[in-house]
Amino acid sequence: MNYKLLGKVLGKIMILESILMLAPLFVSLIYGEGLRHALAFIIPICALAILGFLMQRTTPKRRSFYQKEGFALVALVWIVMTLFGAIPFVISRDVPNYIDACFEIMSGFTTTGASIITDITVISHSILFWRSFSHWIGGMGILVFVLIFIPESDDGSSMHLLRAESPGPQVGKIASKMKVTARILYLIYLCLTAIEVIVLMCGPLINHEALIANGYESYEGDKLFHALLTAFGSAGTGGFGFIPNSFEYFTPFAQYVVAISLLIFGCNFALYYLVLLGKIKQVFKSEEFKTYLIIVICAVFLVFISLVTKLSTVGYSVEEAFRHSLFQVSSLMTTTGYTTANYDIWPELAKAIIVILMFTGAMAGSTAGGIKMSRLVIAVKGTYVNIRKLINPRYVSKTKFEGKSLEEKTKNDVFAFITLYVFIILLTVLLLSFDPSNHEAEHGFFSNFSASLACISNIGPGFEAVGPYASFACYNSFSKIVLIFTMLLGRLEILPVLILFTPRTWKKS
Amino acid sequence: MNYKLLGKVLGKIMILESILMLAPLFVSLIYGEGLRHALAFIIPICALAILGFLMQRTTPKRRSFYQKEGFALVALVWIVMTLFGAIPFVISRDVPNYIDACFEIMSGFTTTGASIITDITVISHSILFWRSFSHWIGGMGILVFVLIFIPESDDGSSMHLLRAESPGPQVGKIASKMKVTARILYLIYLCLTAIEVIVLMCGPLINHEALIANGYESYEGDKLFHALLTAFGSAGTGGFGFIPNSFEYFTPFAQYVVAISLLIFGCNFALYYLVLLGKIKQVFKSEEFKTYLIIVICAVFLVFISLVTKLSTVGYSVEEAFRHSLFQVSSLMTTTGYTTANYDIWPELAKAIIVILMFTGAMAGSTAGGIKMSRLVIAVKGTYVNIRKLINPRYVSKTKFEGKSLEEKTKNDVFAFITLYVFIILLTVLLLSFDPSNHEAEHGFFSNFSASLACISNIGPGFEAVGPYASFACYNSFSKIVLIFTMLLGRLEILPVLILFTPRTWKKS
Repeated sequence: MNYKLLGKVLGKIMILESILMLAPLFVSLIYGEGLRHALAFIIPICALAILGFLMQRTTPKRRSFYQKEGFALVALVWIVMTLFGAIPFVISRDVPNYIDACFEIMSGFTTTGASIITDITVISHSILFWRSFSHWIGGMGILVFVLIFIPESDDGSSMHLLRAESPGPQVGKIASKMKVTARILYLIYLCLTAIEVIVLMCGPLINHEALIANGYESYEGDKLFHALLTAFGSAGTGGFGFIPNSFEYFTPFAQYVVAISLLIFGCNFALYYLVLLGKIKQVFKSEEFKTYLIIVICAVFLVFISLVTKLSTVGYSVEEAFRHSLFQVSSLMTTTGYTTANYDIWPELAKAIIVILMFTGAMAGSTAGGIKMSRLVIAVKGTYVNIRKLINPRYVSKTKFEGKSLEEKTKNDVFAFITLYVFIILLTVLLLSFDPSNHEAEHGFFSNFSASLACISNIGPGFEAVGPYASFACYNSFSKIVLIFTMLLGRLEILPVLILFTPRTWKKS
Repeated sequence: MNYKLLGKVLGKIMILESILMLAPLFVSLIYGEGLRHALAFIIPICALAILGFLMQRTTPKRRSFYQKEGFALVALVWIVMTLFGAIPFVISRDVPNYIDACFEIMSGFTTTGASIITDITVISHSILFWRSFSHWIGGMGILVFVLIFIPESDDGSSMHLLRAESPGPQVGKIASKMKVTARILYLIYLCLTAIEVIVLMCGPLINHEALIANGYESYEGDKLFHALLTAFGSAGTGGFGFIPNSFEYFTPFAQYVVAISLLIFGCNFALYYLVLLGKIKQVFKSEEFKTYLIIVICAVFLVFISLVTKLSTVGYSVEEAFRHSLFQVSSLMTTTGYTTANYDIWPELAKAIIVILMFTGAMAGSTAGGIKMSRLVIAVKGTYVNIRKLINPRYVSKTKFEGKSLEEKTKNDVFAFITLYVFIILLTVLLLSFDPSNHEAEHGFFSNFSASLACISNIGPGFEAVGPYASFACYNSFSKIVLIFTMLLGRLEILPVLILFTPRTWKKS
């Protein structure tokens, strides 16, 4: 292990985090939240800046990464970011418990959106901003961001980093240089986020009357703030709510805008690059994109049908049934977790579809979590190949994926990944079952199962005790730590975290 | 596809089934159940015998099977056995609906033990016998049974059949000839079943006072009948109950005997052959056996602890808590499904362990279903190999399983199998969610999920709406047909059924 280079990169990351924290500090000053909230950000900013500056001064002998170092580094970076990112919550006393704060910010960075906050109305603007901003930071990957600024890193190492942090079975280089690729990706990300903010500002955002009618204060005057937070959460497919009941009190206009935005952020960003290059035909040749579209349409249709046949039970109009179907499908399939309705009381068919979407996730190379469309397609094609081989042992597969022949290794890696994914869900359920609060909080198997699934797929809300109108506050500290790691395993797609905790990784080489 | 040979083997199977049906006919005559019950068996016996005789008279040109033919044949045999095996239920009017009858007998042959009968006390002795006997027939595989009697089949074809029907990732030949192997396996099976019957006859079987106290009739005088049915169900790890509430009204003696028997039938039968040869040391070298033992001990311990801390809630004494823990762990891990207690009301930890055991199953080469211990060990070792390869791309795996080096193909097949297993569970849940009876019967996601899991793992009871004290009667016909195929997919370990429904299998070759 190249400790010096590891320290150097970690140092750079810490400086980056201190810079990023200036944004919530600025929000705190604008809203005049007082000294404690200012200090909540100033203290970690200084600590990060000083430590980071000292660490990045080392001169490593070898200036490149091996694959294992890249993977371990990525996992470590996310843990360090979380340990420091949790500090403002504690100092501001908005979330006084440090483990709760770590849960909240890990949920932010991993774009999960699971929250332990039970009353969102008492949280200050700066902390709300930092939470949602962490979605935006984590969405595209922290290290990909750093890649833009690291001049010395050679291209091989960058590839290792990108591979470890990017969601999906394969990593496509858009440009010939990784740094250029990273810049293009972030530029697209930035522009799409900006467009969403602008569109949201064009119409009414929050239904203030409904809020007041339900006993909450009105949020008039915070429109830009709320548009920004909405966009951060949707761009990163994160899902933290910032007014009561997630998106229930948003206007239909805002709900439609967000639903469409989420579907856009659930696409592979490489497709937008193709659009920029004018190769729109190629976009529609992408098998993953076609699968994504078909599944979205089928899921919305089935959920809609399921709701329409039970309109009296759920109490929606037909338009509402359609809007909630579209919103919930796009929100849960892109593993965001924003909610406009309590889907926990929906008919069984709608719930089953939602659970299955929680597994699948959206496209690889997007900001979404889950197993990903491309893995799904590869698994189905791989099964077909396996059956053909059983029928005829001499069968030579000519199966293709995205125009290239589907390699044995890719196929096998996908099967291995899905197996690990399921094992981790089951292990998490087992560990959560030890929680003595199970009996008081009525955490049934489905609650714990949906909590594990919601965390590993980086969704946020689950069902029943962790349903859309509940929070993760009911779990004890041990369970929260388990879920923190489940979220990280999900975001980094398991292997980097396992490599970090393999003793052999740390042997001198 | 060699249609003539296919017809010939199917014919032999049909003759076999007609012979096997003589046993329940005999029971019907002993208990003097009248003409209708006698005819319920005589009609299918005659139909099977005549059809079978005609079909097996063809002379195929090629007297051996290709792999695909072996696989497709196995799936077909189980379907034909079910279609005819369901007839007695309908004629006797004990289960008047043919789809229900097919569900019941498929559940029998696949050793699932899921039942659509809501009141077991009105079912006649002969039908109860046929149901439980079908567990015993299906337990070791129908075709393995036929192998003993087919003189002409060459060894290569037999291997294909055995591979398609035997549970587990690998098939070990015990003796040099398949026929000898099959004979040894059946002899062990027969002896172990006989021993269980004898042991059960040595003590009190049913707590008649408790039965009468709960408003049921006493079952005195049927002791041998009940011991036989118990042994059939445990040998095949099936799980059909034949008095009210499964094994709740059995004596502690009988419950302990059954719990231990189940663990014995959950072992790979090849181990007993080693014992017969005096190679006991080799038994304890088996990694799968060691894993099995460790998981059983840990699971019993954890469930026991979980129950003991909540004695007042569940209302057991310490001995009862231990007995129920042992019984439920051994019953669900071996995918039998006998129950001594309503585990649906147990603490969350105990339930989580039970659900996980429902996935894992017992050892390969036993009569149990599920993913199997050996696949679990291979998956864990395979993950380790994958991580080592990521850490060092030039790493050459020296990992061994059961003394032999773990091949890439074995590892990849296991990952592919587990992925398919999970996909089928999710697909089944989705299909069950269309059932309009969901709302009335309060089939939550967990009910449907546990029903799918219980069927694919060939367990029987699940949780909530299909819990130990409930039945599958609440599902509609479409759902029942879905579950019939889920059971078959589980019993034949998926691929034979998929091959049967692949058009390419049926091309002329």
